[in-house]
Amino acid sequence: MNASAFPLAARDAGTTVVEIGGVEIGGPALVLIAGPCSVESEDQLRAAALSARAAGATILRGGAFKPRTSPYAFQGLGEEGLALLRAVGDETGLPVVTEALEPAQVPLVAEYADAIQIGSRNMHVTPLLRAAGASGSPVLLKRGMSATLEELLLAAETILLAGSENVVLCERGIRTFDSYTRNCLDVGGIAALKRLTRLPVVADPSHATGRRELVTDAALAAIAAGADGLIVEAHPEPEAARSDADQQLTPQELADLAGRVSRVALAVGRELPQVVS
Amino acid sequence: MNASAFPLAARDAGTTVVEIGGVEIGGPALVLIAGPCSVESEDQLRAAALSARAAGATILRGGAFKPRTSPYAFQGLGEEGLALLRAVGDETGLPVVTEALEPAQVPLVAEYADAIQIGSRNMHVTPLLRAAGASGSPVLLKRGMSATLEELLLAAETILLAGSENVVLCERGIRTFDSYTRNCLDVGGIAALKRLTRLPVVADPSHATGRRELVTDAALAAIAAGADGLIVEAHPEPEAARSDADQQLTPQELADLAGRVSRVALAVGRELPQVVS
Amino acid sequence: MNASAFPLAARDAGTTVVEIGGVEIGGPALVLIAGPCSVESEDQLRAAALSARAAGATILRGGAFKPRTSPYAFQGLGEEGLALLRAVGDETGLPVVTEALEPAQVPLVAEYADAIQIGSRNMHVTPLLRAAGASGSPVLLKRGMSATLEELLLAAETILLAGSENVVLCERGIRTFDSYTRNCLDVGGIAALKRLTRLPVVADPSHATGRRELVTDAALAAIAAGADGLIVEAHPEPEAARSDADQQLTPQELADLAGRVSRVALAVGRELPQVVS
Amino acid sequence: MNASAFPLAARDAGTTVVEIGGVEIGGPALVLIAGPCSVESEDQLRAAALSARAAGATILRGGAFKPRTSPYAFQGLGEEGLALLRAVGDETGLPVVTEALEPAQVPLVAEYADAIQIGSRNMHVTPLLRAAGASGSPVLLKRGMSATLEELLLAAETILLAGSENVVLCERGIRTFDSYTRNCLDVGGIAALKRLTRLPVVADPSHATGRRELVTDAALAAIAAGADGLIVEAHPEPEAARSDADQQLTPQELADLAGRVSRVALAVGRELPQVVS
Repeated sequence: MNASAFPLAARDAGTTVVEIGGVEIGGPALVLIAGPCSVESEDQLRAAALSARAAGATILRGGAFKPRTSPYAFQGLGEEGLALLRAVGDETGLPVVTEALEPAQVPLVAEYADAIQIGSRNMHVTPLLRAAGASGSPVLLKRGMSATLEELLLAAETILLAGSENVVLCERGIRTFDSYTRNCLDVGGIAALKRLTRLPVVADPSHATGRRELVTDAALAAIAAGADGLIVEAHPEPEAARSDADQQLTPQELADLAGRVSRVALAVGRELPQVVS
Repeated sequence: MNASAFPLAARDAGTTVVEIGGVEIGGPALVLIAGPCSVESEDQLRAAALSARAAGATILRGGAFKPRTSPYAFQGLGEEGLALLRAVGDETGLPVVTEALEPAQVPLVAEYADAIQIGSRNMHVTPLLRAAGASGSPVLLKRGMSATLEELLLAAETILLAGSENVVLCERGIRTFDSYTRNCLDVGGIAALKRLTRLPVVADPSHATGRRELVTDAALAAIAAGADGLIVEAHPEPEAARSDADQQLTPQELADLAGRVSRVALAVGRELPQVVS
Repeated sequence: MNASAFPLAARDAGTTVVEIGGVEIGGPALVLIAGPCSVESEDQLRAAALSARAAGATILRGGAFKPRTSPYAFQGLGEEGLALLRAVGDETGLPVVTEALEPAQVPLVAEYADAIQIGSRNMHVTPLLRAAGASGSPVLLKRGMSATLEELLLAAETILLAGSENVVLCERGIRTFDSYTRNCLDVGGIAALKRLTRLPVVADPSHATGRRELVTDAALAAIAAGADGLIVEAHPEPEAARSDADQQLTPQELADLAGRVSRVALAVGRELPQVVS
Repeated sequence: MNASAFPLAARDAGTTVVEIGGVEIGGPALVLIAGPCSVESEDQLRAAALSARAAGATILRGGAFKPRTSPYAFQGLGEEGLALLRAVGDETGLPVVTEALEPAQVPLVAEYADAIQIGSRNMHVTPLLRAAGASGSPVLLKRGMSATLEELLLAAETILLAGSENVVLCERGIRTFDSYTRNCLDVGGIAALKRLTRLPVVADPSHATGRRELVTDAALAAIAAGADGLIVEAHPEPEAARSDADQQLTPQELADLAGRVSRVALAVGRELPQVVS
């Protein structure tokens, strides 16, 4: 790979610490981003946020505009979901990150959220990358399900070129021939990205595995490989979730994940700040 | 695969012949869609259109808004390209199809073009699918580079549910572990789609192979497998093209492709209408 | 790809017509190799051979040593199957090809069969390639399920270097992320191989699709792309087959395939010799 | 996945600790297997063994029969290599594991080595699996480069059914569309295997990444995901190696890997026994 293809994102451009609502990503401390797949109701979101915060998460995630394969599946609450995210984020002191699905949604998402997520299905969508990059908000860019590392870096370059200074990359598993796990977490890719780019890299073990019982082990692997943090789906009652029921953690599982992650973090010279209860 | 997941697109909903600017796709006659990867200039486009028409093509393709992996690559002429497409299409009597990259572009593209293309990078982008479906224009939907057949059919269902009656599917090769060819044309997928959906299916041998010398053989394979037509990149001077220089055919190669395709078409009970010169 | 990596197999080494029991592969005429997945009994094999011959097949295939994923699945009749192949082949005038699974089996298989098949699971197994190459028998080399074209050519080179002059390559579909079809027939790969190597290339539409209803369309695609022949699984009663029940053709389907193939063959300047009944 | 397909390997059959030359795999302590890709000379192997032992490795690896894609590449020293392995293993007190490429080699390999490796290219080769299983030696079974987890477990079942009680699984990276790394280490697969089977699971970060600078991070990820050990390529002078020069670690890098692994091991409740120097 020729780093001259992405001069703004390249490693020799330095090391970037991205700040999302006061929380730093890419510094010595790891970040835990957690929350439900979809925002479903105020009660659900508040419960998710409180348990995320209790587990040590410092950023809240949740989908308001949901990209779904079937047009008959739940598509998210839309702007109502954004408003709930903002309200619950303010109430719990957690900055929020959520996805924008099209350029025209970017200003609205930027108004409510502290960071804009570009989802895996959209990593190749230049107009959306540009709109996010021009918005002034930090951008969490997920790797496409079959995007090469170079394509991910060129997508990041597109955002940076559009004016953003704050891009976080997210490895979320790639599509392979084996469907036992939903995707395959590319830990070698995480390690490679840390050498190729100045941008922080987080991992999404939820989409990478698609199976609740494997999420924590994949999370530990990502941290061991050098990831700067995690974005994890958790829900007060996963079995009642309107999307991704199989891969969302319970509050207890999330707390357990955080405890185990914090031990591995120390072993690799990082730290996951733990809540003082 | 459970066809009840896509009731509007399913086979038992009948057989659909889609009309683009008076040209039927999905009937007994095959359709040849040809033209340059990118609209570069009026002269280039006119030359491409004339040679396409001479070869038997009845629809002109050309990109005005180009989805590119690198933000530093040529991004297309934009609306100027759309205007050139319309003018050259009218001049040569060829309806035109071109890509829209975001929902907000759909009305503009629909104004200039006879059909809207949804590109491979965008097959999963629900807002764009919906906007195209609601536009009233026919839609040419390309399979995502790592989309399953079911995901392609659900994307078509999204367009149909948004109000369109006219969707053409396009198999353009899928991403595999072997990079000798740019992608792998899924001829079994073409045959399967013809059994799974009422919608016409065309093939793009240019992106499927990425190598000029292999385009015609892949085109013949697609027709033999049951495709209803082809969309082929051709350029007056491929080596001078501003994008996809390696895979665009010369006028002579396109004419040769059409001649060979017409023979295979007859062998499988179809026909590629040939120009009367 | 650098053809100097496989000097014996390379295109500029000429064009090779391989002879199997008097039947030429790689000349102007296409070859149809047909027969059951597994040899199950004398009656089954004779019925299969007669219907294969009636359809125009000139070589009989059938597995005696079956490579199976599960150790609990039917593993073939072994040497008894070889003897049946030889007897039925002699009776019907059809040369036979069958698989050897390990170097030590090669002499035995060579004694009974007119050509030795190296299966997809074994394409990378150097000792077997060498043993087959040294046997003096023609070798039918199937592409590994995730082997690149270059790896296939290097496997062929290994056989040639071991002393064989008669190697036929077989594209049998590659493994991808989509499991609707068992594999994906790489027609671009067929076209590429014809340009890269002097060796004949046949296609296996049965394993490429894994679905009876798609086999013929895939076969037509392979011929249109330039394949020199086909190897097709057919069984007197597919639903009663002890292996690959879903993809074996009935005698009538095989005859239909042959008829349709012969028309496409003529359209691409080849010929499938038809039986005079 | 239905565990009844592999009753001998299934999880509910218990938990197996495999012993190789007195070293336990699958118990509380992790195992580090290290050594050169190929045995090249007595001096090279002794230097590799001493540095492996100094780093904490308790089993020596090294290839005598090398499976190579090109027939023109170095194929290993053969029986001379086996003898060197035995001699150096005895001298340094390290049991040795090395690959057998065909059934007929199994007795020879079993005579010299403490465990027989089945390589990735051979995971599907039933006769070799059976021969290894019947040999009485422990077997290190590497996952095929595009084998599903279920196929790996069925290959293990084949070995167990042939009589072995001692099988160690090895995840060594799977083939994907991205060639920046040689393969993609499937950490979710490691975590899944630990739940699906009673057999120990080790990881090969060398082949998984193919890049020296990424090997250690991938090794840490594997341990964090639950692997019972590592098999790592290391060479006294990697740049002079006759195979896999890009991915072999220097003695210093191996020692560094071991130190970092031991810290992550403790964080996940395991231990990598460290050498007392």
